[in-house]
Amino acid sequence: MRKILEDALESCRKYAEEGRVANYIPELAKSDPAEFGIAVISDACHLECVGDYDKPFTMQSVVKPMILLMALIDKGADRVRSLVGVEATGKPFDAFNYSDQALKREHINPMINTGAIALCTLINGDTYEEKFARLLDLTRKMAGDEALSVDEDVYLSEKMTGNKNRALAYMLKAYGMIEDDAESVLDVYFRACSIKINCIGLAKIAYILANRGKDSRTGEQVIPPEYARYVNAIMTTSGMYDGSGEFALNVGVPAKSGVGGGIMAVVPNRMGIGIYSPALDKKGNSLPGIKALEILSEKLEMSIF
Amino acid sequence: MRKILEDALESCRKYAEEGRVANYIPELAKSDPAEFGIAVISDACHLECVGDYDKPFTMQSVVKPMILLMALIDKGADRVRSLVGVEATGKPFDAFNYSDQALKREHINPMINTGAIALCTLINGDTYEEKFARLLDLTRKMAGDEALSVDEDVYLSEKMTGNKNRALAYMLKAYGMIEDDAESVLDVYFRACSIKINCIGLAKIAYILANRGKDSRTGEQVIPPEYARYVNAIMTTSGMYDGSGEFALNVGVPAKSGVGGGIMAVVPNRMGIGIYSPALDKKGNSLPGIKALEILSEKLEMSIF
Amino acid sequence: MRKILEDALESCRKYAEEGRVANYIPELAKSDPAEFGIAVISDACHLECVGDYDKPFTMQSVVKPMILLMALIDKGADRVRSLVGVEATGKPFDAFNYSDQALKREHINPMINTGAIALCTLINGDTYEEKFARLLDLTRKMAGDEALSVDEDVYLSEKMTGNKNRALAYMLKAYGMIEDDAESVLDVYFRACSIKINCIGLAKIAYILANRGKDSRTGEQVIPPEYARYVNAIMTTSGMYDGSGEFALNVGVPAKSGVGGGIMAVVPNRMGIGIYSPALDKKGNSLPGIKALEILSEKLEMSIF
Amino acid sequence: MRKILEDALESCRKYAEEGRVANYIPELAKSDPAEFGIAVISDACHLECVGDYDKPFTMQSVVKPMILLMALIDKGADRVRSLVGVEATGKPFDAFNYSDQALKREHINPMINTGAIALCTLINGDTYEEKFARLLDLTRKMAGDEALSVDEDVYLSEKMTGNKNRALAYMLKAYGMIEDDAESVLDVYFRACSIKINCIGLAKIAYILANRGKDSRTGEQVIPPEYARYVNAIMTTSGMYDGSGEFALNVGVPAKSGVGGGIMAVVPNRMGIGIYSPALDKKGNSLPGIKALEILSEKLEMSIF
Repeated sequence: MRKILEDALESCRKYAEEGRVANYIPELAKSDPAEFGIAVISDACHLECVGDYDKPFTMQSVVKPMILLMALIDKGADRVRSLVGVEATGKPFDAFNYSDQALKREHINPMINTGAIALCTLINGDTYEEKFARLLDLTRKMAGDEALSVDEDVYLSEKMTGNKNRALAYMLKAYGMIEDDAESVLDVYFRACSIKINCIGLAKIAYILANRGKDSRTGEQVIPPEYARYVNAIMTTSGMYDGSGEFALNVGVPAKSGVGGGIMAVVPNRMGIGIYSPALDKKGNSLPGIKALEILSEKLEMSIF
Repeated sequence: MRKILEDALESCRKYAEEGRVANYIPELAKSDPAEFGIAVISDACHLECVGDYDKPFTMQSVVKPMILLMALIDKGADRVRSLVGVEATGKPFDAFNYSDQALKREHINPMINTGAIALCTLINGDTYEEKFARLLDLTRKMAGDEALSVDEDVYLSEKMTGNKNRALAYMLKAYGMIEDDAESVLDVYFRACSIKINCIGLAKIAYILANRGKDSRTGEQVIPPEYARYVNAIMTTSGMYDGSGEFALNVGVPAKSGVGGGIMAVVPNRMGIGIYSPALDKKGNSLPGIKALEILSEKLEMSIF
Repeated sequence: MRKILEDALESCRKYAEEGRVANYIPELAKSDPAEFGIAVISDACHLECVGDYDKPFTMQSVVKPMILLMALIDKGADRVRSLVGVEATGKPFDAFNYSDQALKREHINPMINTGAIALCTLINGDTYEEKFARLLDLTRKMAGDEALSVDEDVYLSEKMTGNKNRALAYMLKAYGMIEDDAESVLDVYFRACSIKINCIGLAKIAYILANRGKDSRTGEQVIPPEYARYVNAIMTTSGMYDGSGEFALNVGVPAKSGVGGGIMAVVPNRMGIGIYSPALDKKGNSLPGIKALEILSEKLEMSIF
Repeated sequence: MRKILEDALESCRKYAEEGRVANYIPELAKSDPAEFGIAVISDACHLECVGDYDKPFTMQSVVKPMILLMALIDKGADRVRSLVGVEATGKPFDAFNYSDQALKREHINPMINTGAIALCTLINGDTYEEKFARLLDLTRKMAGDEALSVDEDVYLSEKMTGNKNRALAYMLKAYGMIEDDAESVLDVYFRACSIKINCIGLAKIAYILANRGKDSRTGEQVIPPEYARYVNAIMTTSGMYDGSGEFALNVGVPAKSGVGGGIMAVVPNRMGIGIYSPALDKKGNSLPGIKALEILSEKLEMSIF
């Protein structure tokens, strides 16, 4: 396994040159495109890491499965489904999926910004501070890292420049899909996107999802199996932005990427994978990360199809 | 003329039953659908009024031509055109005219919300209070009524519930089309929509536009003739929401309507007309108002086509 | 007048270099971009011509007002309106104006391809040969030229390569908006687009429309005045493709252009204008033609706004 | 297994009342909504059947994976990918996935009509008869039924009324995505949709896909494993029309449905399933079929997520 990871890392380093670090948030533009790390937890809870596996980065959209999980745990699948749909949208993650003068739940899903923002309102908590605290706790628990915290600079940068997300939140409000103060909801979302994690943390979350919610290290059922399936299914159809179809063909496992450079990949029953490299392709996915996963998928016969 | 107006008023009263008072802003929902007034200023500066011609109502979208005029006066046609396009959009006035992941000036025009909000930023003034004061002054001057003021209840109601407009403003900001604080820009827009006017005021503004910017009562050139034409042209193609084509066929003059129930109609070289009736058709135009204009157009041979 | 026309012609010749001859139909690509002619019939039926005013070209979309007129004459305004809407679409002339899984009459108008193709079915005639013969007769009569005929090469070229129009026709059929054989309907449309005319012919048609259907030379009411207004109104809002708003601002009269290089402009009560120059701008309008009309509009105070 | 199938069949019969037989093709409207059958081939090539498992029905969209397979076999994945994309579209199967005035390969995929029609041109064969013969042969071979043939009535009915597909084909032609005669291409597509099959046939095809192209009965590698994965992946993201996300959550296996009432479901490494019931939900999927698959998925732990 170690050899396979090292080979994948080395042979995919070159793609960093083709990719570009996210620049829509000033803070993200400071990332070093050469950074590249992989962590894999496989069958017997064995962890293998290579490269910059312990380098922290912000979760960005990789936090979307966590928001979905938290909403499922706190309000159940029916309530989640009545607010946010589950179909692939065929559009970019930040598009106004809006037709015929109305925004409907069928137009959105938990893996696009509009859906994730809406789901923040379903997390339990009297205040939005409490809601975020719950989300952070779940993420810490699944990542096995109580020290996970928000990158304040990225958070403030997102909050300052996140006007597209602000527009999406006010549209949700205009159509009665959220009732709370839009800025408070966005604050949870911006904080969530700014949680710092590393490859090991992502691999641990993924490994729990791969085992249908069970933490194999402790035997604890951290989340109900049906919610793990919910998340795995929707990551498969929509997790890699509008490159999800391509990823299903070439890698073939549930996964979620973020513009911070992280990818979390779930190999059902077998593995949890965390990858980090901030050199993104045009769709917003880590380019070296995807290339490495293609190699791993072939070598380790990961595809579920 | 008086007889023609009275006949039009009486024969169109019945349409109030088919129309519906705007309900998207709570304050507007309080309007009385039976109110109906017409004011016409014709060839020799002669004013004729019938019905509830002196009943005040809020301008709502009828203020859009004023915002456009103010922006033209303060920054000139080139700057206005570089920010906001001039083509009909084929969509409702509050639609996200947005394609292929970008908002462009070609997607908007001064008669839809996005365009009007953007144009508020072009009004001169160090603060947004000053910008609004300039707009109010111009409106007062053209309407010949120094007492025009904002309906505070409607303004607060718009500000409280205007989340769709907020979404549009943040989208403008996200695409770099406005730089200032979105809430400040919206404040000018919400105040402008809430200016109270009556049929006589609208007729006076329209009469100045009909005479290419000249106030025939005083001989003063209030606005440059080319800006009057600019406004008249764009009201013809886009002034009556997505009923503009229908209105061009059936009435055939530049006009602008608002969900407050007002319609301002310009008969070039000849007449300025102000109508008020808050019973709206499905497109947001005053239904008795449009029907009355159809009759007036036929009786007075108003069509420019 | 002659001096004004000559000056306009000379000063706008240069724009031929910026424009491009239509190339979507192979035959049209053979046009000479340097050709440029203007014909104006003004107040006392006086004809003034300059440049290549007698050079024949195919009508292309300039025939759309004729198809609309023929349908209005044969079936009346109600039937025409129940099939084809009247609002500007905000989209290119050959777009699939189609939303939410249905094509509706509100999505189309007589100045876009879909609408014009649908209207061909409303022309009287037992066969499609008869329908086309009626259309050609009306065009000949209004253009004052009994020799008008189809350019067979262009017609065959359109028929051979017109797959976009074929797609639009089958979509009309799929939604029950046309019942007849799609190829027969398209044949009328392709023939109509291929009628050869010159600037004088267009000016004569325009002069009749300017006089609300009356042929001032003979005193005959060729078409009912309300149909002339119908056509003038819709040419104003949608006649110059998605450059109609721009044209309303800069020229300010009803007009229709075609990718063959022709523009027909109607100055109500005053003038009929025919222009030809096949160097098109990006929207499909003759660039030297539009520039010449801007000059004429200013010099002759043509704008109706 | 038999008991599970019988229970599923009985408990889902009631949904036939909520569904509706397809009526867009006159011939399909004649189907009996009460018909319902299931065939499952499981681990040891064991076939279990209940209900109307041997009742023939037309494949309709279930043939799309076959067209894709044939194109992959004949031209390879690179050529297939250069013509037709792989992303979910977020729109109905027969939508004009068309934006900004162009149809591009990124807008389509092999599971929607436009994509499937385009892929018909990639099948080897000098004539379109030969192309169809190859497709039919492959389908017969995989279904293990040399007697599979076209339902001539349905074929003629599709050909006669398939104007939406005709529009899609001419649009492909207009954008240079197909070069051949549109009617010939459509003829292959209409014939393919009209192939009669039964539940057992679908289960056999599915079982080969579940075993990555290997026919476990004979040991023969019927299709290359990478093409089986290609088809399984794209069925997962887009196989159940715009209900694919829902199906991934509730059933969790690659599947393809058709408006004839058939569903083919692939349980990787384990099972091939064929279901038939012509009572469709609003998205065009067999309603009793989907409900039965939900039960089977739970009872047999089929989900790959």
